[in-house]
Amino acid sequence: MIDQINMSETLIDAAKEVFQTMIFMSISEKEDQETKLVGNTYMGTISFKGDIEGCLGVTFEMAAAQAIATNMLCLEPDETVADEDLADAVGEVANMVMGVVKGRLLDHLESIEISIPTVVSGRDLKSNVGDSLRIVKRVSVESFEGELSFLARYNG
Amino acid sequence: MIDQINMSETLIDAAKEVFQTMIFMSISEKEDQETKLVGNTYMGTISFKGDIEGCLGVTFEMAAAQAIATNMLCLEPDETVADEDLADAVGEVANMVMGVVKGRLLDHLESIEISIPTVVSGRDLKSNVGDSLRIVKRVSVESFEGELSFLARYNG
Repeated sequence: MIDQINMSETLIDAAKEVFQTMIFMSISEKEDQETKLVGNTYMGTISFKGDIEGCLGVTFEMAAAQAIATNMLCLEPDETVADEDLADAVGEVANMVMGVVKGRLLDHLESIEISIPTVVSGRDLKSNVGDSLRIVKRVSVESFEGELSFLARYNG
Repeated sequence: MIDQINMSETLIDAAKEVFQTMIFMSISEKEDQETKLVGNTYMGTISFKGDIEGCLGVTFEMAAAQAIATNMLCLEPDETVADEDLADAVGEVANMVMGVVKGRLLDHLESIEISIPTVVSGRDLKSNVGDSLRIVKRVSVESFEGELSFLARYNG
């Protein structure tokens, strides 16, 4: 069962793998987990259902989202990124991280079905679902700020 | 095809049906569509894929979310509602509105598969996906403020 996996570690490892191989940036867990993200942020969420149901989220401050989109779209560092491209990039990060997490979960579970990502921008974003498992990790994306979350409950 | 449906009207009608029959509150399109929601808000989103893919969102100011949760849970008007119950109530509104919208869409489309709802709280919330159809409607829920959104693109 899923209790055999350390989901917190799985989440961070999945993000590291995606950032290293697909975005060419480094991401790491922050030592200080208490400070909140400030200012305008983008949050990409992807929900899943099956033997486990819930939602994975990746949240980035605006500057982080811009750097990520710039790298993913192979733009010049000073090129401006359209709002729509920022949102698509953050949604795609959620999608890729969930892809890796799903692979790990399927070693222990029979079925997980994932949704398409949705992206919300705003301030003081916080993901809320009634959940038995709630992991929220503050991360650094190089010099930028971000947060990963995995909220879930088991079925059956 | 879906061009035959007025999605804007479908969205408002679905919300009216859900609020009248399940929440016992009235919801209506605001005359003034320009003013933004202020303060802390809850947004429930639900994504769908199939012949059409995208995301439906319901956003409510905190006081509206409280009134909705109070009615759904049959609480006394002055009882406080836990954050988790607020989030669950807003997620369930998204779920019910999407259920009605899905029924209407299936008169015109072959398949739509919907996700479980996710709920985000925060300020200045805005749903972003690369979309060909973008409907955002400010609504009144009795004396409270809210917003409905339907962002989608067609496949094939």
